[in-house]
Amino acid sequence: MKTTIISIGDEILIGQTVNTNSTWIGQQLSLLSIQPYEVICCSDNADHIVQSLDRAAVQSQIVLMTGGLGPTKDDITKKTLVDYFHTELELNEALWERMQAIFAQRGKAVVEMNRSQAMIPKACTLLPNQRGTAQGMWFERDGVVFVSMPGVPHEMKHLMEHEVIPRLRQRFTFPSIVHATVMTAGAGESTIAHKLSDFENQLPHFIKLAYLPELGVVKLRLTGSGSADVEQTVLAQKEKLKTILGRLVYADGEEKLEVHLGKLLLARNATVSCAESCTGGLISHLFTSVPGSSAYFEGSVISYSYAVKEKVLGVKKETLQTHGAVSEPCVLEMLDGLLQLNNTTFGIAVSGIAGPGGATDDKPVGTVWIAVGNSTTRLAQKFQFFPSRTENIRVFAHAALNMLRLFMLEH
Amino acid sequence: MKTTIISIGDEILIGQTVNTNSTWIGQQLSLLSIQPYEVICCSDNADHIVQSLDRAAVQSQIVLMTGGLGPTKDDITKKTLVDYFHTELELNEALWERMQAIFAQRGKAVVEMNRSQAMIPKACTLLPNQRGTAQGMWFERDGVVFVSMPGVPHEMKHLMEHEVIPRLRQRFTFPSIVHATVMTAGAGESTIAHKLSDFENQLPHFIKLAYLPELGVVKLRLTGSGSADVEQTVLAQKEKLKTILGRLVYADGEEKLEVHLGKLLLARNATVSCAESCTGGLISHLFTSVPGSSAYFEGSVISYSYAVKEKVLGVKKETLQTHGAVSEPCVLEMLDGLLQLNNTTFGIAVSGIAGPGGATDDKPVGTVWIAVGNSTTRLAQKFQFFPSRTENIRVFAHAALNMLRLFMLEH
Repeated sequence: MKTTIISIGDEILIGQTVNTNSTWIGQQLSLLSIQPYEVICCSDNADHIVQSLDRAAVQSQIVLMTGGLGPTKDDITKKTLVDYFHTELELNEALWERMQAIFAQRGKAVVEMNRSQAMIPKACTLLPNQRGTAQGMWFERDGVVFVSMPGVPHEMKHLMEHEVIPRLRQRFTFPSIVHATVMTAGAGESTIAHKLSDFENQLPHFIKLAYLPELGVVKLRLTGSGSADVEQTVLAQKEKLKTILGRLVYADGEEKLEVHLGKLLLARNATVSCAESCTGGLISHLFTSVPGSSAYFEGSVISYSYAVKEKVLGVKKETLQTHGAVSEPCVLEMLDGLLQLNNTTFGIAVSGIAGPGGATDDKPVGTVWIAVGNSTTRLAQKFQFFPSRTENIRVFAHAALNMLRLFMLEH
Repeated sequence: MKTTIISIGDEILIGQTVNTNSTWIGQQLSLLSIQPYEVICCSDNADHIVQSLDRAAVQSQIVLMTGGLGPTKDDITKKTLVDYFHTELELNEALWERMQAIFAQRGKAVVEMNRSQAMIPKACTLLPNQRGTAQGMWFERDGVVFVSMPGVPHEMKHLMEHEVIPRLRQRFTFPSIVHATVMTAGAGESTIAHKLSDFENQLPHFIKLAYLPELGVVKLRLTGSGSADVEQTVLAQKEKLKTILGRLVYADGEEKLEVHLGKLLLARNATVSCAESCTGGLISHLFTSVPGSSAYFEGSVISYSYAVKEKVLGVKKETLQTHGAVSEPCVLEMLDGLLQLNNTTFGIAVSGIAGPGGATDDKPVGTVWIAVGNSTTRLAQKFQFFPSRTENIRVFAHAALNMLRLFMLEH
């Protein structure tokens, strides 16, 4: 079922608005086993909208439009649709009465501009907008369905859920598509691809593997369609993939690393705290970005300076003088001091060089020492990452979370 | 100068990735006075990529592509471009040596897949990617420029800033446009718009004012074009705007709040530390995301639990029992304990309810107490923000930074 999404609005093209509408619609269509064929973002311009409609009509059976339905001058989608479908506007009395009632209820005066929003093209099926004054409209021509929706995200979503998707389900029969997602941490895209090269070669033709790398984690997605046993096959292939990747896999299904760690900690009724130097609070921020994290996250010491490392965490002056802050002895002492101070089940200590400054001959930018442990066992490891500060901080933080995950598998 | 942006990748179409790349590119093009004509999101499919290229070539002089350049099988952009431009791949020796050196430095083995990324189409100008292994490529045909960039945002941005935009400036002549940006913190978009309504009405027709709200700050941009005295007029209007907004303005020109605070602290040879509860490390992360921040940022205590508040910061048990953690006495005691512990010139203490849990009748989600001060003066203030956790944490952190900025204006 080929589908084109048309996002109308200058604000999207010039980057004032992120086009989250097409993202959300894409997610909803995927659940219906439709992969959108194309997203077109065009300006508030009649000719451009017509061009986009023409193209969409040729290449798809479903055309979903958002935006350009407001009451102001620059919103010209409705007028363009009237011309495109050779129809005319007429006042929808029921709608107009409902709009007047809503305005009266809010104590606002109805102006002429509002009445224009109750003018609906004769050729369309009205999809009433329960959340605003710009209405949804459903047109059909030559077997192609065209739906126009307002661009305000919560209005569009309400219309999609309550009007558009139910009608699409009635109007079309959808093939079955199966997705399976696996989350990995601890290796980059090319390393994983190398490990999976034989696996990819043996995949049946109706299953595709996609690599979706983010900073610090790589998401893998298997997608299958067009075969009777697609569901079992995708699931079996997913298990095979998990076996090949072993401990690189941290979750089955979409899940952030910090969410996964939170579940591990909760399941063991354990707590965690951090001693962060170069990551400067990001690990703590990731932990606490998860709702309910106060059940396992106690707190942290951000020991950016030597003084805080010594005074709050009890790192020895000699350690800093002899080995420097980016060293195995330093992160181990940070970890000891942290566990003594906060008394948590597990602890993480990180010290590294995010850059651009701070590098030495034997410690280039991107060097980081990470220690994880509990009251009886401690583990320290050195990593070497990239030359960019922002990415380093994020990658360091994810490496630390992943190291704690691996430690918790054995302790 | 008509420009089409092509975003390649199934993950965009099915909504697994928000297309922030086209948003960012749209912003950059606007600064060059280009409004992108169209954004096309298409799948990782050679035919579809070719169709999109054909269409873009007809309707534009500049075609900017992102995505589909990874080392794995589903990334087919490069192969498609080779066919499209009737050219072939050849190994770029210099690039290959540089890639091997980088891998060696990181102690990683180079695999065959990496070598494929050093294979570059003969017909293109290589735009070296300093941030990753997928290279940028610049093609020209019949007066149309086609640029292919990797989809990883920080790699694409670096390429745009250091290669693509400078080359576009050389290749084309852009009409002269003058931008002036002013940064504000401490008020929302509608409050600022209300204060600026007379100002907007008196603006000459060749100057436009844009509101670019981000969480916690609002950027205001004046854009002028098409008049001989446009530069002086924009600058004069900017001064007028700054006078109207007064202390809401924290910087002239684009600058993050944490960067601005860093400059203020450096100029006074002062230091800062934080006691963070609900912000969970984000304020520290913002401070330390700025290169060179170790000159003024000492460290922080993330006191998520009552225990850490008491033990590390010395908050009294009675204070927590009587007033709760989200209270004026608590944040003032957190601040006192922090300044005693870290001995910095200035301190910030924050305790609030980010949600979704933790609310009480008199302290709804979005309530936050913030204290700032130095060794002699302390100031505490309560704020009430929104019902969403993610936004609250960010808005709380920015409110705290802004409160320290205002405190530093007088102390």
